[in-house]
Amino acid sequence: MSEPRRDHAARYPVRRFRAGHAPESVDDLAAVEEPLEIRVAGRSVGVTMRTPGHDRELALGFLVGEGVIGGRADVEHVRPCDRAGGERLDVIVAPWVAVDFARLTRHVFATSSCGVCGSASLEALRKQFPRVADGPVVAPEVVHALVGALRGVQPTFDQTGGLHAAALFDEGGTLLIAREDVGRHNAVDKVIGHALWAGLVPLHRHMLLVSGRASFEIVQKARAAGIPIVAAVSAPSSLAIDLAEESNITLIGFVREGRFNVYSHARRVRE
Amino acid sequence: MSEPRRDHAARYPVRRFRAGHAPESVDDLAAVEEPLEIRVAGRSVGVTMRTPGHDRELALGFLVGEGVIGGRADVEHVRPCDRAGGERLDVIVAPWVAVDFARLTRHVFATSSCGVCGSASLEALRKQFPRVADGPVVAPEVVHALVGALRGVQPTFDQTGGLHAAALFDEGGTLLIAREDVGRHNAVDKVIGHALWAGLVPLHRHMLLVSGRASFEIVQKARAAGIPIVAAVSAPSSLAIDLAEESNITLIGFVREGRFNVYSHARRVRE
Repeated sequence: MSEPRRDHAARYPVRRFRAGHAPESVDDLAAVEEPLEIRVAGRSVGVTMRTPGHDRELALGFLVGEGVIGGRADVEHVRPCDRAGGERLDVIVAPWVAVDFARLTRHVFATSSCGVCGSASLEALRKQFPRVADGPVVAPEVVHALVGALRGVQPTFDQTGGLHAAALFDEGGTLLIAREDVGRHNAVDKVIGHALWAGLVPLHRHMLLVSGRASFEIVQKARAAGIPIVAAVSAPSSLAIDLAEESNITLIGFVREGRFNVYSHARRVRE
Repeated sequence: MSEPRRDHAARYPVRRFRAGHAPESVDDLAAVEEPLEIRVAGRSVGVTMRTPGHDRELALGFLVGEGVIGGRADVEHVRPCDRAGGERLDVIVAPWVAVDFARLTRHVFATSSCGVCGSASLEALRKQFPRVADGPVVAPEVVHALVGALRGVQPTFDQTGGLHAAALFDEGGTLLIAREDVGRHNAVDKVIGHALWAGLVPLHRHMLLVSGRASFEIVQKARAAGIPIVAAVSAPSSLAIDLAEESNITLIGFVREGRFNVYSHARRVRE
């Protein structure tokens, strides 16, 4: 299927910290994350946060997984439609393909890792949750030490290699609570739920660390809980960086092996 | 918050292959993945596929992220309810907490990586999609070579560290198509959509490889497309193994560094 070539990575200015070196400003590439709305015969059946490119394949494969189509002949064509602030595709199916929209919509949202339309969502987030407070400034040594502290209390990962983790730290770098889950977003929810029950929310003086990558969804949860510093062991997505910038959140990535990159609001890391 | 202690890992019998050694049968631990339904004041607002344990924290943190509650005082209590084949929690909020169920349900399903109730879903999957056909038997050398072939065509990961990948192979181990995406499920959809457009679905003689972990959702997509062999670079979840077993799918994990583990239907890997 011939589709327009899209960039999978976007360039961002970052502040790079390495133990024993002065911080430096460099450019870094982040994987692009953007919403795509999938329609069938003109009706919306879901929005997924995806990396642009091969969108028609994405829409078709998605509908295979939902049992709507089972072969090439079931598809008449896939029609791209641009709209302000987002993208959508409309899949026109063959006349014999019966589409149960009620079931599909329910099932789609119940089985896929879905996102929301970026611009609509950013707008909704702005209204629903204030930008986070300025909060603390932390030393680079505190950031370097976060991952070691998390690894020390993450037993199941060592057993199975299959769990994500999230942890909450105070501004001095003391680990307050850590949770593991097959879903990174669940581990974050557990940490924030624990903090809420302890009367700590909003978490204006705290840091959140997640194993693996930082997506839009993780930063959104941090904003809702008022957390000013979010750190990830691996890479952030483009939309995570954009939302952190907009939310007054310091987003830190690649926190490992004595280095890390700050993607937004670097003033909260002391130089 | 005091919550019942739950096991985060479950034991499964696996067939372990190492280059230069005879295969052996061992037990391996897999991270537990099970559905949890979250209710507010008795009404369902979402189902998430999570690792059991700290479920009340999960429900509360989830509602913080959705903007329903913002502090300890907003919660009266969290009531566990058991039911056949799944679990659910009911969050009773304070009288002053206004809950917009229509918005919440829409937004919940649009922002979270959600799953479906395990048993209900397995039942629905059984009805909707047949078990996959017996398909090919492959040599261990073919499995060992999968990851190298994928790495060779995965440029953006090298640039950003932030993309998942999925690839489709024929039974001889030739890579047919590979796709990258911030979401592993999207990369799988793109690969299957490409194959559909090429007239290859159902993929009864093919192998699917995913970077990272194998969840319930990945195996579900493979079943829908008729793929008999699913391999993952990292760990499978418990529900992924259960669904693969039920679906007549050979599920292979930890395909790296000259070894791999077969979690279900090991007869498709030649000994």
